[in-house]
Amino acid sequence: MSLAEQFESNNKSYVSTFTKGDLALPPAKKALILVCMDARIDPAKSLGFEEGDVHVVRNAGGRAKDALRSIIISQKLLGTREIIVIHHTDCGMLTFKDEDLKSILLKDTGQQTDLQFLPFSDLHQSVKDDVEIIKSNPFVLDIPITGYIYDVKTGEINKVSSD
Amino acid sequence: MSLAEQFESNNKSYVSTFTKGDLALPPAKKALILVCMDARIDPAKSLGFEEGDVHVVRNAGGRAKDALRSIIISQKLLGTREIIVIHHTDCGMLTFKDEDLKSILLKDTGQQTDLQFLPFSDLHQSVKDDVEIIKSNPFVLDIPITGYIYDVKTGEINKVSSD
Repeated sequence: MSLAEQFESNNKSYVSTFTKGDLALPPAKKALILVCMDARIDPAKSLGFEEGDVHVVRNAGGRAKDALRSIIISQKLLGTREIIVIHHTDCGMLTFKDEDLKSILLKDTGQQTDLQFLPFSDLHQSVKDDVEIIKSNPFVLDIPITGYIYDVKTGEINKVSSD
Repeated sequence: MSLAEQFESNNKSYVSTFTKGDLALPPAKKALILVCMDARIDPAKSLGFEEGDVHVVRNAGGRAKDALRSIIISQKLLGTREIIVIHHTDCGMLTFKDEDLKSILLKDTGQQTDLQFLPFSDLHQSVKDDVEIIKSNPFVLDIPITGYIYDVKTGEINKVSSD
């Protein structure tokens, strides 16, 4: 059974007890969280929110660059007014350099890419950098942004920056 | 109390019962799911997966363009070999056109942006389009990709395309 088939089966259980069909489109907590795609992090469980509460944007590293489109839509069209950025310990983004991955891709496909993979070497700094990228974007509202590091060994979030 | 402070408080409960500190970095189910950032969708609960299972990429619409960087990292560096794409009913991306949002931003800031906001007018087609964008990217592996629409009224996923 493929994972897609497993998910279809699991989803039937979710549907059988589903009671949240009347939630509004705009997030109830008026917030957006930006989190790494890492499999070990369950944002809803670890932060204690439920369906309908917050926009959840996730990508490799929890990086701001890929997220700006979503953040602007979230704020301008769906009314969110707080952002939380979460990177984490033992992140895959700490394990390679942009040129390493570009070399692998060139070797595998014979093609070069101008995609930036946005790895980082300093976890605290990466959180600060992404908070700053969001804050300094002219299309993003001047609202509270808090940065955290999630510890995959303990499940704990530790604040890096806030304003 | 800000949402960040609420999350810090909620997180203490999660940490107090946390037993998953030994999970490996690569996803156990060797898969990546791409889902809209919509607040009403809890991917882990609705699909039945746990911490450590899958990479979760989320953005406005669950669009492929923003996700390619993450997908390539996921496959090349962390071994995932299946992709599931999930868009959903009542999506905010169905409610505007790119030029509408650009006009709002110009009015609010006096600045123009070349960012593409990637709204869509046909939900089935948007899933097919994003599956195709992923499949046709030369740096993405030839692996199973399945597309679904999540129904926010029922919690049910319905398959749009598979290969």
